[in-house]
Amino acid sequence: MGLSGTESYPPASRRLRLGIVGGGQGALVGQWHCTGARLSNRWDLLAGALSSDPERAMASGREWMLAEDRIYADYREMAKAEAARPDGIEAVAICTPNWTHRPVAEAFMEAGIDIICDKPMAMTPEDCDALAAMQEATGLVFAITHPYPYHPMVRQAREMVASGALGKVRQALVEYAQDWAMEPDDPNSRTLSWRRDPSKIGRASATGDIGTHALNMIEFVTGLSVSRLRADFHVCGAPKAMEDTAFMNLAFDNGAPGALWITQAAPGNYCALRFRVYGEKGGLEWDQEHPEHLKFRPLNEPERVIVRGHGAGVLPAAERMVLLPRGHGESLSDAWGNLYTEIAIAVEARRAGKTVPEGLLALPQLKDGARGVRFIHAAADSHDAGGTWQPL
Amino acid sequence: MGLSGTESYPPASRRLRLGIVGGGQGALVGQWHCTGARLSNRWDLLAGALSSDPERAMASGREWMLAEDRIYADYREMAKAEAARPDGIEAVAICTPNWTHRPVAEAFMEAGIDIICDKPMAMTPEDCDALAAMQEATGLVFAITHPYPYHPMVRQAREMVASGALGKVRQALVEYAQDWAMEPDDPNSRTLSWRRDPSKIGRASATGDIGTHALNMIEFVTGLSVSRLRADFHVCGAPKAMEDTAFMNLAFDNGAPGALWITQAAPGNYCALRFRVYGEKGGLEWDQEHPEHLKFRPLNEPERVIVRGHGAGVLPAAERMVLLPRGHGESLSDAWGNLYTEIAIAVEARRAGKTVPEGLLALPQLKDGARGVRFIHAAADSHDAGGTWQPL
Amino acid sequence: MGLSGTESYPPASRRLRLGIVGGGQGALVGQWHCTGARLSNRWDLLAGALSSDPERAMASGREWMLAEDRIYADYREMAKAEAARPDGIEAVAICTPNWTHRPVAEAFMEAGIDIICDKPMAMTPEDCDALAAMQEATGLVFAITHPYPYHPMVRQAREMVASGALGKVRQALVEYAQDWAMEPDDPNSRTLSWRRDPSKIGRASATGDIGTHALNMIEFVTGLSVSRLRADFHVCGAPKAMEDTAFMNLAFDNGAPGALWITQAAPGNYCALRFRVYGEKGGLEWDQEHPEHLKFRPLNEPERVIVRGHGAGVLPAAERMVLLPRGHGESLSDAWGNLYTEIAIAVEARRAGKTVPEGLLALPQLKDGARGVRFIHAAADSHDAGGTWQPL
Amino acid sequence: MGLSGTESYPPASRRLRLGIVGGGQGALVGQWHCTGARLSNRWDLLAGALSSDPERAMASGREWMLAEDRIYADYREMAKAEAARPDGIEAVAICTPNWTHRPVAEAFMEAGIDIICDKPMAMTPEDCDALAAMQEATGLVFAITHPYPYHPMVRQAREMVASGALGKVRQALVEYAQDWAMEPDDPNSRTLSWRRDPSKIGRASATGDIGTHALNMIEFVTGLSVSRLRADFHVCGAPKAMEDTAFMNLAFDNGAPGALWITQAAPGNYCALRFRVYGEKGGLEWDQEHPEHLKFRPLNEPERVIVRGHGAGVLPAAERMVLLPRGHGESLSDAWGNLYTEIAIAVEARRAGKTVPEGLLALPQLKDGARGVRFIHAAADSHDAGGTWQPL
Repeated sequence: MGLSGTESYPPASRRLRLGIVGGGQGALVGQWHCTGARLSNRWDLLAGALSSDPERAMASGREWMLAEDRIYADYREMAKAEAARPDGIEAVAICTPNWTHRPVAEAFMEAGIDIICDKPMAMTPEDCDALAAMQEATGLVFAITHPYPYHPMVRQAREMVASGALGKVRQALVEYAQDWAMEPDDPNSRTLSWRRDPSKIGRASATGDIGTHALNMIEFVTGLSVSRLRADFHVCGAPKAMEDTAFMNLAFDNGAPGALWITQAAPGNYCALRFRVYGEKGGLEWDQEHPEHLKFRPLNEPERVIVRGHGAGVLPAAERMVLLPRGHGESLSDAWGNLYTEIAIAVEARRAGKTVPEGLLALPQLKDGARGVRFIHAAADSHDAGGTWQPL
Repeated sequence: MGLSGTESYPPASRRLRLGIVGGGQGALVGQWHCTGARLSNRWDLLAGALSSDPERAMASGREWMLAEDRIYADYREMAKAEAARPDGIEAVAICTPNWTHRPVAEAFMEAGIDIICDKPMAMTPEDCDALAAMQEATGLVFAITHPYPYHPMVRQAREMVASGALGKVRQALVEYAQDWAMEPDDPNSRTLSWRRDPSKIGRASATGDIGTHALNMIEFVTGLSVSRLRADFHVCGAPKAMEDTAFMNLAFDNGAPGALWITQAAPGNYCALRFRVYGEKGGLEWDQEHPEHLKFRPLNEPERVIVRGHGAGVLPAAERMVLLPRGHGESLSDAWGNLYTEIAIAVEARRAGKTVPEGLLALPQLKDGARGVRFIHAAADSHDAGGTWQPL
Repeated sequence: MGLSGTESYPPASRRLRLGIVGGGQGALVGQWHCTGARLSNRWDLLAGALSSDPERAMASGREWMLAEDRIYADYREMAKAEAARPDGIEAVAICTPNWTHRPVAEAFMEAGIDIICDKPMAMTPEDCDALAAMQEATGLVFAITHPYPYHPMVRQAREMVASGALGKVRQALVEYAQDWAMEPDDPNSRTLSWRRDPSKIGRASATGDIGTHALNMIEFVTGLSVSRLRADFHVCGAPKAMEDTAFMNLAFDNGAPGALWITQAAPGNYCALRFRVYGEKGGLEWDQEHPEHLKFRPLNEPERVIVRGHGAGVLPAAERMVLLPRGHGESLSDAWGNLYTEIAIAVEARRAGKTVPEGLLALPQLKDGARGVRFIHAAADSHDAGGTWQPL
Repeated sequence: MGLSGTESYPPASRRLRLGIVGGGQGALVGQWHCTGARLSNRWDLLAGALSSDPERAMASGREWMLAEDRIYADYREMAKAEAARPDGIEAVAICTPNWTHRPVAEAFMEAGIDIICDKPMAMTPEDCDALAAMQEATGLVFAITHPYPYHPMVRQAREMVASGALGKVRQALVEYAQDWAMEPDDPNSRTLSWRRDPSKIGRASATGDIGTHALNMIEFVTGLSVSRLRADFHVCGAPKAMEDTAFMNLAFDNGAPGALWITQAAPGNYCALRFRVYGEKGGLEWDQEHPEHLKFRPLNEPERVIVRGHGAGVLPAAERMVLLPRGHGESLSDAWGNLYTEIAIAVEARRAGKTVPEGLLALPQLKDGARGVRFIHAAADSHDAGGTWQPL
């Protein structure tokens, strides 16, 4: 849809069957998954274990208009039942709290169902290794839902850096700022209670939640790896048990320095994931709150604003994700749609025993999820040691 | 989804069955309809007469994954066949060129199917009267697809004006600027050939295409009616048979003056539908290319930027359309989703014999479509008479 | 200062002697003249008839640190006395209300003193003709203080249009919006009382005040002349005797259409002089409230933001006005400084009997002032006739 | 000028006599000093040692239209000669390279002349102590030229924080980014050669140049002191002997964390001094490249844009610096004018034996200059120690 020529994604032959675990009523993340799946027009959402509370699971399932016999309260039961159906789901979206990602993913991999997993992928690097071993053994797709690289102008930035438009990257800054943690947590919030509990969220709170997006973004765009980092955790909003803010220094593997700042306590910032990448020949700046505009600042030339759309400087790998003409806005729902399109292509290819052409997709996969978990641990190690450099 | 409390839309009990006429391969408008229908999660697209060319119709229908027996090459056949099926479509989206809107709508109204019609609704005021009579006789829903009022910040603007935040409106400006008509029309474009032919598009080209959106927007936001207008048509892009640009003066029914400028020949403007409304106590400014930000300029106070999201000054009627948290962007796909949600509520209510609660919806209907057609004729009359004032 | 190479302005050999008429305490316009003169470092302000009220004149003169014997209450006396002094002023800045411009200018021209006159230059086209005859007879410099073309990015726009960067101009819009006339006039304001009195301000109020700037700007930038216009005057702010708002249609001499909107009743607009010029190959957009950024929108290419400074696409005629490096902001004071620099060069050349090199200056002169007066009359004629086209 | 009521600055009774050391032809900093002095209308520039090269000194002095007998090639001679004249200068602006600041200031303090000194004030903390002792002994004014706090919206931010608009400050970020060090230094540049030589510039290059501005800004606005910092120096532009970039972590004395980033190697950043301050109740954001707009982000309310001008939320201490009405732009020249106005008030008061009323001025003085020098040394110490925390 909206694609043409050799640069397009392959068309879908049919919609794939999707299930979901977690993401029940009031759960924002589940909604996004469904939005992406629907917008892509490559998936039908048919089954779900939307809550571990049976009543809540049933109510949520009805709200999403699932057939009643495919609304489950237990994900293990769901995995088995769906695997047994001739029309069973082909992939499952895992939208549960962090500490359950590993067992849920294992249950569905065991049932031969492809995995679409939220970040952080697991609690520990060891969990990640276990999941990686199982994924390798099964050959299943294991996608991680980083939606932000699916904004076409982020893809554009990555392609520009890769093509040398900036020359060598000399420094890069990334930040992700929000403000919802200014106020005390709602004591009745199911979401917040586990986000402040290390046994359920892991070694860090905001760092796992938004820091992993920031790390993924800056590595995605620059094509570089962060080889070392230094982190200080802080509580800058209402008092709470775990950090809502972190200041980090980065060292990229090409020797360039960088900075990463995340906070959920900066009033007036909502979803301010921003990067600034500066190379020998120019700079690139982007802000998720204005996702359609990529600022390209070639050295000693006028600034350029590259706007999402067809032509006018948009590179093929970015244009492939463009659905609407320039000015007819796309935003985060559309990015989730692009993500679910790429997941569908990967799942369809695996099921058909085909290989996806090199460079067609840029799907975040298990190794990217594992990197996010290692990032959380490196940052927590650094903070605990008073801000020392840690390898990543 | 994302809604809570008394201000929410009623939930869907099931997805409604949707058909589409027009909108085949490469047709942008059809894609938007489907996007809106899918995003709303209140519709299944099940049937279509996507092209009058049978091969093209079949190819398009397969691309959208319609069942083959519900892919039609003739809309009359489709209306009859679908009306006869127990699982036939409940509403049809009409995405064909202007001159066919009336006969297509008549065929489906005759079959008792609710209508979702693109603008301009018809070729002449007489066509509109005929459609209105038929709609009144049948009691069917007849929605007009103006998506822009479905940006939450447009709804916010309307509610602010209505609540007196600006005091009496003293002047208002609206414009819709694009740039695709700078270059000569592609002689092979099916879309463009009818857009330059008065027998197929009516008395004006750009005025009907984007001018009707501009008129609808400024009347929607101000709550005023344009009682008189003055228009000059121009060709400012590549040479062509009909206008690509119009400058208009407006007189609102409360005595305030206004201006309306539309063009498809202003390089660097893509979908720049903008309004500026100034009243006794303040002003409001909005730009469709940045749809999430409404600038409120209270007299003698700092400017305020009201950002789409929950709370922070967003009024209930706007908040009802908010799906994602502030900063997690929504844009035109989401607006189409909101539009299709409201259409679904209206269709469901009619089929259930219920009345939609006053003020719940702001759905553009047949009378709004008819007003757009009268606007085109008044503007063309004015232009033909050398720019005289014409009543509207 | 800050200039180098062949593109620079010639350096000053000494500071010229400046007098001022009008512009006493609380008078904003006088302050600007002095700011410009001081910033240019080419003038010493030495004499003034700052008010027709002797006490006020003396107080104002002292505040500006003039010598007491050069503080005058009567401009005629000042013209004679200064002409008689060996160190008398060489130019006079006329900052009085409109109806006095002609007699004041005549008195100083009679005394052989160069003229720097506010706009509108006079009350009627006949006044303008009389002043033109006298200027021609005396050969004196007669500059009109339009400061906005002295923003470097305005000069840049003009040069880009002239060099063909846009191709043929196809349409152009200009506006100047303020909001101070929302509230009732202060009955004690000396400034406002004459601005509402046709015998003192002429046939229009806002049209003369800010409309002349808008006309000058759009003709300056496009290099075109408005050959015809159509105008409607309105009161959109507090009730008042003369218009605070005008909507105009323009016809340029190359056949392109345009629009001009001015208002002093648009809350949240302060000094929003903006132009948008669209040609065959691209567009240019600029806003006086953000004067350092010129948006260049080449067709089918990324937008470019040309930022005031040296190099990076800034053309020599614009760069000549650049004092501070890019990012070290310049604004309206600096524009007045540039204007007074060009006036000094013109005055110095005249006194030395030299010719200013072609293309070095772009100084608004008597003919530009006269054009502004004719514009006011054409607009008033159009309004009085119900909005008919009038030649200009 | 432009001030009224009790909040105004006191008017000048006469212009003060100013001299300048350094700042000859091509020297940007000297130009700014003169611009500020002229714009303030409180100073006459009458004498200068504009270069240590006599020919260059004479040429520069003539360009600035100094009397020939007051153009000096040696600052010591100038100090003595001026002190001996009945019409000798009352203050001297020191615009020379860093390593000369101390001896020049000592020579003029010895002559009883008030000091206006560029930053960094000296090479070492010991230099600062010596200057402080001499200043205390003489009682002379010793102003440091930080112009950025003289943007009215910076003053507004400080007052808002002080008045509790943000509640307790919880985190603060400041950055100053430029791009001129991307390219190799011009080997013939007199300016650059000393900026890369530790014996002439001190222990750091960019850190002293723009880092001191950033530190001053964040402490000025927050009203907090940085008690500890951590710094890493980098070369991110063309190869050079000293750092062009530094990433720092800050710890404020109220316990809040912060970050400071400076670079002269970020393409497309020109003079991007920006702060972001977040407190319990809201945030403030400002960017020197758009100095008239202060973004105030009260928690859970719409964002507000406070625009320089009279009223509309601008506090008296900021309004005092406002010369032009809102929208009639002010920028860096005007900020230098405000700085020179405050210096004049301080000098005039000292000479009259009067005390400046508490809170009237916010003039950066010797202690602020000394703090900047200590900051440079703390940062260099931290960098040398591998990025350890250092007290400040």
